[in-house]
Amino acid sequence: MAQDKSTRRPRAEPPKGFRDYFGAEVTERKAMLDKVAEVYHRYGFDPLETSAVETVEALGKFLPDVDRPNEGVFAWQDEDQDWLALRYDLTAPLARVAAQFRNDLPAPYRRYAMGPVWRNEKPGPGRFRQFYQCDADTVGAPSVAADAEICAMLSDALETVGIPRGDYIVRVNNRKVLNGVMEVAGVLDPTDPDRFANERGIVLRAIDKIDRLGEAGVRALLGEGRKDDSGDFTKGAGLSRLQIDTIMRFVDAPYAIKSDLNQAAALVAKTGGDTDVVNKLAVAGSTLADLFGPPSPETNQLRNFTALKVLRDIVQSSPQGLEGVQELETIADLLDRQGYGPDRILIDPGVVRGLGYYTGPVFEAELTFEILDEKGRKRQFGSVAGGGRYDDLVKRFTGQSVPATGVSIGVDRLLAALRAKGRSSADTQGPIVVTVMDRDRMADYMGMVADLRNAGLRAEVYLGNPKNFGNQLKYADKRQSPIAVIQGGNEAEKGSVILKDLILGAQIAQNATLEEWKDRPAQVEVPRSDLVAAARKMLGK
Amino acid sequence: MAQDKSTRRPRAEPPKGFRDYFGAEVTERKAMLDKVAEVYHRYGFDPLETSAVETVEALGKFLPDVDRPNEGVFAWQDEDQDWLALRYDLTAPLARVAAQFRNDLPAPYRRYAMGPVWRNEKPGPGRFRQFYQCDADTVGAPSVAADAEICAMLSDALETVGIPRGDYIVRVNNRKVLNGVMEVAGVLDPTDPDRFANERGIVLRAIDKIDRLGEAGVRALLGEGRKDDSGDFTKGAGLSRLQIDTIMRFVDAPYAIKSDLNQAAALVAKTGGDTDVVNKLAVAGSTLADLFGPPSPETNQLRNFTALKVLRDIVQSSPQGLEGVQELETIADLLDRQGYGPDRILIDPGVVRGLGYYTGPVFEAELTFEILDEKGRKRQFGSVAGGGRYDDLVKRFTGQSVPATGVSIGVDRLLAALRAKGRSSADTQGPIVVTVMDRDRMADYMGMVADLRNAGLRAEVYLGNPKNFGNQLKYADKRQSPIAVIQGGNEAEKGSVILKDLILGAQIAQNATLEEWKDRPAQVEVPRSDLVAAARKMLGK
Repeated sequence: MAQDKSTRRPRAEPPKGFRDYFGAEVTERKAMLDKVAEVYHRYGFDPLETSAVETVEALGKFLPDVDRPNEGVFAWQDEDQDWLALRYDLTAPLARVAAQFRNDLPAPYRRYAMGPVWRNEKPGPGRFRQFYQCDADTVGAPSVAADAEICAMLSDALETVGIPRGDYIVRVNNRKVLNGVMEVAGVLDPTDPDRFANERGIVLRAIDKIDRLGEAGVRALLGEGRKDDSGDFTKGAGLSRLQIDTIMRFVDAPYAIKSDLNQAAALVAKTGGDTDVVNKLAVAGSTLADLFGPPSPETNQLRNFTALKVLRDIVQSSPQGLEGVQELETIADLLDRQGYGPDRILIDPGVVRGLGYYTGPVFEAELTFEILDEKGRKRQFGSVAGGGRYDDLVKRFTGQSVPATGVSIGVDRLLAALRAKGRSSADTQGPIVVTVMDRDRMADYMGMVADLRNAGLRAEVYLGNPKNFGNQLKYADKRQSPIAVIQGGNEAEKGSVILKDLILGAQIAQNATLEEWKDRPAQVEVPRSDLVAAARKMLGK
Repeated sequence: MAQDKSTRRPRAEPPKGFRDYFGAEVTERKAMLDKVAEVYHRYGFDPLETSAVETVEALGKFLPDVDRPNEGVFAWQDEDQDWLALRYDLTAPLARVAAQFRNDLPAPYRRYAMGPVWRNEKPGPGRFRQFYQCDADTVGAPSVAADAEICAMLSDALETVGIPRGDYIVRVNNRKVLNGVMEVAGVLDPTDPDRFANERGIVLRAIDKIDRLGEAGVRALLGEGRKDDSGDFTKGAGLSRLQIDTIMRFVDAPYAIKSDLNQAAALVAKTGGDTDVVNKLAVAGSTLADLFGPPSPETNQLRNFTALKVLRDIVQSSPQGLEGVQELETIADLLDRQGYGPDRILIDPGVVRGLGYYTGPVFEAELTFEILDEKGRKRQFGSVAGGGRYDDLVKRFTGQSVPATGVSIGVDRLLAALRAKGRSSADTQGPIVVTVMDRDRMADYMGMVADLRNAGLRAEVYLGNPKNFGNQLKYADKRQSPIAVIQGGNEAEKGSVILKDLILGAQIAQNATLEEWKDRPAQVEVPRSDLVAAARKMLGK
């Protein structure tokens, strides 16, 4: 036990998968979240801040007979042997709060929450074990008006932080439509919801992989199974050909919508219809395959109309499916009449998210502009937010079903998008640096920064070793300082100070033709009493 | 293992010692921290956000040969068997960052940090296991100008959030003075710093208990030991009578300062001096015993001057002690010349905080106004922030000493103080509630809230079950809504809406004389197109 502790130094690094955020990284995120909070506030949502730590049983996901909780969360046992864990999202704590304070909270309860969550997952490039979420949820509102409100608010939030209309689309689907498809395909029995649960799980996972596996791959998974390139065999759902065809009609719904629109265009053209109408139909059809095509209110309106018809056709023998389509129509109508038309919010059967979890409408916000990826290739930015209706989460605690719907913004992704578009904003200018020429006159230098600060300017005195003046200017450079203030013995005697314009200085250094800078001196000497005014002038304030 | 899981519901509560923050509790804290951040920013400090999780070895405090880390932190082992823990303050992570990024960060590095920290301690009334800290530190600045800057910034921060000058005092002491006292008393050997470490520990703990144990109790602890009321015996430092007298001179320094001032007043009076001078000296002396007496620049100046003299007398044979007094004098001078006089920042040998940790100046901000405690008794509000110089924290990682100084604001205490003074600010007004008279016209109601929001007003539509109109008004009441908007069938036909002034309504309900409300109707009916204008008028906006 007698170790030599004095020789062992701790490693100066955070745990694997964690990182630090410096300066503008912090203020830019804060500026963005402040704007989002303003929108949420205007919609009547109240902030809620739960603690980072919850009991594992309140978070859910874990079986009481498992000794050590699963991977996925950071968990430990407290002094009473209860398992505690860091929250992995903001929805589970909300469900706990909604159950705990059900007699005190307003009903419905609209709340927003912003903060870090933790996942005990394998870290990767850009994937961290602590990251921010920004959620808004309405608990206790059964009507789809609540879902529509969330979609409208999401639109407003995106536009407020700097994603203009046309650069994003909120895509809406409904979990009930998917259930309807399951019912029609014979893998959901409304009188016995637990039956075929295994098959449905396989179907959902298969549908979600359409982009990667293609139609043949998905069909294989719906049937006997699929052997991948490495020879591994994944057992399928074992559905019949007819069942598979039914599921695939849903998977192919976007193509059906496209085909319907193009056929309509052809028919109108054949019967000598208005060319403008033909064009609109054709554009709506042709840009549908990539659902991110430049949206316009009119073509998207046509898509919405056709999507509802195609979906209704597929689920027509399922009451739940038809209810889902009806809800989508209501949502689209409610939003349209508030000014949130299909140029912003679009019905899209392709949204298949969080499948096990949601019970009604689901939505996803996609940014539709292109950025360059790390290899310089253009690609769509993709999803930055998503959510939907989950009516059973609070029930875990109380036994009573409580309707709830909400959205979660991926804070880091949205911030990356704003940076990619040059729309991230935060005051990142460094402070004015007052240099120290004479250590004994520190009080004078501190008096200068006090004057500058009292005038609202960001300023600091150099607090390192003042011996090497070059180091002081290097420091000012590292701080992105706009101005260095200098008062040596001569200036002190005269009662003056020198202001060096470091931004201009850097520009001059980069630019050979000094001519153009002639009328704007990079350095001025002014009376000490004019320090603040001269600094203001140099900053253009 | 076959448990019946379906019957077991999780408890809807947070872990012991954790709590939730709702609505204004969140926004008021945020508003306060935003103001503090603005001050820190103006002083050139940059934000830093480290993750909540650190390795236990980076946090320090734990021995490598202990299998399960001590109480005090929440810790667990990761998949590599490394111990991780939630940070217990914001200083340990800063030391890790300063070591890790020492080649990239500007030197000196000024940073601020705000966020929750976690302590695995016994929770109690008002004591939680997660709470906010708000720190500002300068790393790499050896001069006491850095300490002075922190004190000035702390003053500015307090005034900016709403504690006016005169309602607080920043008290400053110096760890080196205390070391000087130890040296003079023969329990510190500068040539062998580890010698007498045990005795010094007992001395420090004894000094810190002067308020509770009184002079006799402290003397007992400095000597053979002390038996408390329950009969428990605490072993003392075993000092001689002479050593004890020396330590007690320091403990009694405030009384010596008072006595000096009163003696001076008496002498000046005797020799027929200016009455004004006599009075000032007497006031400075008389209000010193309670160090929270109403400060004035002049009397505090006298106290500072006398405190420095008394301290210099006590430590005169210790070079380190004299250096400490000199540093205090420099700090007071630097601050005074920037306008931060002794009405705000006061030298006070009574500050004995974080004793094992600090290496130079230490400071503490006290609020000097009285509040009523839970039993209705008046008491001083007390300390809301503290800090000091710690030159050895980064050394743990790098082996090289890095000077550092900083302050930590107790966010919850400061917020409680602002609330006690009615100075906490946040927009806590509830939203305008648009009621639902006819479920089928939901789109119309949502159109109304959209109009109100687009005009910048906080508004929401009632999303609960609309059947019982009374419930809708109760909801509006719970939401502290200023206005309820009503459009029934009649109004819809006429194209009008009714606005009900709920604030006025509540006042009328409390007040019997309706006369005075006559000219301000609690309810108006206006054309739908005038909704926004009418709401604005009712809100007085």
